[in-house]
Amino acid sequence: MKKFAVILCGCGSLDGSEIHESVMTLLAIDRNDCTYSIFAPNDTQYHVVNHITHEEMPESRNMLLEAARIARGQIRPIEECDVNEFDALVFPGGNGSAKNLFTYALQGAQCTVREDVATLIRAFHAQHKPIGALCIAPVMIARVLGDVTVTVGTDERTIHDVESFGTHHICSQQKGVVSDKEHLVFTTPCYMLPARISDIADCAENLIEAILDSIA
Amino acid sequence: MKKFAVILCGCGSLDGSEIHESVMTLLAIDRNDCTYSIFAPNDTQYHVVNHITHEEMPESRNMLLEAARIARGQIRPIEECDVNEFDALVFPGGNGSAKNLFTYALQGAQCTVREDVATLIRAFHAQHKPIGALCIAPVMIARVLGDVTVTVGTDERTIHDVESFGTHHICSQQKGVVSDKEHLVFTTPCYMLPARISDIADCAENLIEAILDSIA
Repeated sequence: MKKFAVILCGCGSLDGSEIHESVMTLLAIDRNDCTYSIFAPNDTQYHVVNHITHEEMPESRNMLLEAARIARGQIRPIEECDVNEFDALVFPGGNGSAKNLFTYALQGAQCTVREDVATLIRAFHAQHKPIGALCIAPVMIARVLGDVTVTVGTDERTIHDVESFGTHHICSQQKGVVSDKEHLVFTTPCYMLPARISDIADCAENLIEAILDSIA
Repeated sequence: MKKFAVILCGCGSLDGSEIHESVMTLLAIDRNDCTYSIFAPNDTQYHVVNHITHEEMPESRNMLLEAARIARGQIRPIEECDVNEFDALVFPGGNGSAKNLFTYALQGAQCTVREDVATLIRAFHAQHKPIGALCIAPVMIARVLGDVTVTVGTDERTIHDVESFGTHHICSQQKGVVSDKEHLVFTTPCYMLPARISDIADCAENLIEAILDSIA
């Protein structure tokens, strides 16, 4: 029974973790008879966004507490995620993840990655444990690891930015997974392409299966 | 292609709609090649709860705006839900739904149901269109319709309260659906029983299939 660490950063596509991608990741892990532990930074979100109007709201929310809604309270601060306790690391996406975990939605190719998150990615990579990323999160893996292969779907601007990190990009169709078996990096487009919610479930299922195949 | 109306009331099990049940309901509808429209009351939540400590937070949130996180912005106020546009009505659960849509978590058997919600339930029932409810939401259907058959799992206190409404209760195991084919009321226990996230997906899938069978 493999153990997955799943990293969230709030609750909602525009200012936190994308909910469908997060829930489908947990479902795919459970359906494969594996276990998950959920972590998030115990820190303030970049901002809070009205998910109907897309306008910023004059509020402040905590990434760990908001992600606890998705986790039903079973969540810990990211600094408690010990690479030695897990077989794989997974990052659901959402535009909010590109504001909180890294800054791609704010700074494009000049983005930075939270140091605790970058440290975790490097730790799993150093132990040759697989890392999965959905939607926009592959940009973060590319930013940290550089010379790996990922997919972000087909968006030209994002592909250009990813390639500027020294990363190899492969375009993917919906539900597809790009597997970098040398570096154990697994990525899938989800809402980076037009999607129905069942596409997200399929992306997550295909991603988790690809990861499990790599450590069978 | 059948059309479902799905009613939410925030985002999080303790103060809004339970996220897994909501997302799995949408997934089950989509997987069955049906469509959904999501609605919520455009009104303030009963309260806001820290999903780690379970303590109340000194904040105020709007049910429609928070549910928009689950709906990715594709959501409308509940008064725009027209029974004539839909084939079925579904209520995901969560303890928060029993504070916002009705008051069972606050008042037990003395609970009341929001008038707009009760009106919607009566409208679908009057047109003999199926109504589905997950988790604690069957208590609300029982409160409004009285003489129907539902399940809330196996919790004795809740069963006693439901029966006090003149409702017939059938105990169910996890993943089970109780189908009242005479009144077209379909219910499934979800987090009213110990559950893994895949159980919630199975409950939702079984519920939607039972509803579709009833209107085939």
